[in-house]
Amino acid sequence: MVKYNLKLLILDVDGVLTNGLIFFDNQENEYKAFNVKDGLAIRVLSELQILKFAIITGRTSKIVEKRAKELLIKDVFQGYRNKLVAYNVLKEKYKLKDSEIGFIGDDLNDLPLIERVAFFACPTDAPKYIKEKAHFVSSKKGGQGAVREILEFLVPNFYEIAKNYFSNSSF
Amino acid sequence: MVKYNLKLLILDVDGVLTNGLIFFDNQENEYKAFNVKDGLAIRVLSELQILKFAIITGRTSKIVEKRAKELLIKDVFQGYRNKLVAYNVLKEKYKLKDSEIGFIGDDLNDLPLIERVAFFACPTDAPKYIKEKAHFVSSKKGGQGAVREILEFLVPNFYEIAKNYFSNSSF
Amino acid sequence: MVKYNLKLLILDVDGVLTNGLIFFDNQENEYKAFNVKDGLAIRVLSELQILKFAIITGRTSKIVEKRAKELLIKDVFQGYRNKLVAYNVLKEKYKLKDSEIGFIGDDLNDLPLIERVAFFACPTDAPKYIKEKAHFVSSKKGGQGAVREILEFLVPNFYEIAKNYFSNSSF
Amino acid sequence: MVKYNLKLLILDVDGVLTNGLIFFDNQENEYKAFNVKDGLAIRVLSELQILKFAIITGRTSKIVEKRAKELLIKDVFQGYRNKLVAYNVLKEKYKLKDSEIGFIGDDLNDLPLIERVAFFACPTDAPKYIKEKAHFVSSKKGGQGAVREILEFLVPNFYEIAKNYFSNSSF
Repeated sequence: MVKYNLKLLILDVDGVLTNGLIFFDNQENEYKAFNVKDGLAIRVLSELQILKFAIITGRTSKIVEKRAKELLIKDVFQGYRNKLVAYNVLKEKYKLKDSEIGFIGDDLNDLPLIERVAFFACPTDAPKYIKEKAHFVSSKKGGQGAVREILEFLVPNFYEIAKNYFSNSSF
Repeated sequence: MVKYNLKLLILDVDGVLTNGLIFFDNQENEYKAFNVKDGLAIRVLSELQILKFAIITGRTSKIVEKRAKELLIKDVFQGYRNKLVAYNVLKEKYKLKDSEIGFIGDDLNDLPLIERVAFFACPTDAPKYIKEKAHFVSSKKGGQGAVREILEFLVPNFYEIAKNYFSNSSF
Repeated sequence: MVKYNLKLLILDVDGVLTNGLIFFDNQENEYKAFNVKDGLAIRVLSELQILKFAIITGRTSKIVEKRAKELLIKDVFQGYRNKLVAYNVLKEKYKLKDSEIGFIGDDLNDLPLIERVAFFACPTDAPKYIKEKAHFVSSKKGGQGAVREILEFLVPNFYEIAKNYFSNSSF
Repeated sequence: MVKYNLKLLILDVDGVLTNGLIFFDNQENEYKAFNVKDGLAIRVLSELQILKFAIITGRTSKIVEKRAKELLIKDVFQGYRNKLVAYNVLKEKYKLKDSEIGFIGDDLNDLPLIERVAFFACPTDAPKYIKEKAHFVSSKKGGQGAVREILEFLVPNFYEIAKNYFSNSSF
């Protein structure tokens, strides 16, 4: 059902689920903007257990925990400079092989992971040397629907899946 | 006066009244950005009772209540996975037929409603399969004036209506 | 020194000093984004008394008061549906004629003022029927430097003025 | 290792590290958005002591202090109308010559500094008269990766440096 027979798709946050902007204010608070169309697809595929999602990110914030909860993503690894460390924990937890794992990233701190997974995709605004390593480059930018586009590529019958999901709900 | 003889226009929020971005911070707060040009048209047409507006959205936040109040929109249905459930309440309340109702949406959770209303419009950045179902696709993106453009399409003499509205005000 | 012999330039806020987006959150707070390059020019011309600025806007928020203070704009009229009402107060206060006043606006609530002032300019993303009435249309959008571009048009030697302003400062 | 033999690179904030937008709210708070890809490069080059960074800006906010701390930038000069005043303090502190210092700026208040440093770069959305003075103009806009692009120009082997930095981390 999912191309590449992926069971787990790992998502980076900044530049992938967001447009790469981090907002700061004068009161130690921090802000990020997520895309509702990305969210719809992650939520539907998560809830129907068609694909499992996890987040591995170099930064740390409560923002990501909150968004992950909304999207039913339980495995959130924050503050990892070397993402392979978190990756190995995930693989062990779900007894998965590299060949069953995909990843969406966009920058140099993603390189160690890019070289391990079966499927790597990135938004169109990733640097050239990252795009050259991708199996799929979205036409959309990070935070502007890149993840949604990649998910529709991986799950070709997403339209029918989502249509049924919403039509059959009683609330 | 209003094309398609519409009496009620239902609006989606994220991706239609906004650009689809939802901002989160570290303190459980959430943010959305609305367009002042969309707002001007909704407010004028609402207040002059040329067209009635309602909101049906899949998410839930106080943000939408606040914006709706500004725009004189009284009927706000939040947290509906299947928008038909809210739609039927609205139809009943105002004793309206499908043929008198229009809708602006932009994603797969809008499909059940799209198939019922007399007029459906969407912003240019909606997915292809949504745009194919629209009677009118705005040249502007969601949150960048899409709703304003659709309203000016539906109410061809909007320029004169608004000009009088502002000129004749004493404050 | 200033084209059209303008003594006072009136600015709209939303869509002119901003990109037209108004951010709301779940806690009754509101947000707008201003452009630092617009601000530099307003501040320099204000402080050197080359041009007087005022703000007339249809909405009301503390945000505008704060930004106006930074830019040394003392006359701020908020919450005016018919901007002519505020305009007449301003004219009286400074004993000015229509022929000495310019205006930057972008929407239908600006029409009554547009028809009175000696010089009207708007950002490139104003509606067609507004652009048709302008003496000058900036190539930049509202909030993306439109006001700066209009000011450099009105004050052709702005480069030298600003260069001296910054070079001669001792702090 | 660094082109122009630069030892210190001075950064402007608004329009360079950000897109030039300053957000205000109704509660005296202020917001700016920084780019995570800019941040990655500054952080890596800072930590590996390949290039020293400093910030000189005309405005003042805690936002900049916070972002500077994250990026390991210790020298932050805020509220300088004439940036040369801060520049001279910096030169003295690190016993540097003009020929060892670079600068990224984007507006007229940057002119005094532009005329002193060995290397000046600016984002593509700087005004024409600023771009004409630059040794390098990025293809990206301020806040959209301009600083990252300029750093990769100055440090041609950045890809290898960053790859090793992330691969060799044990956390």
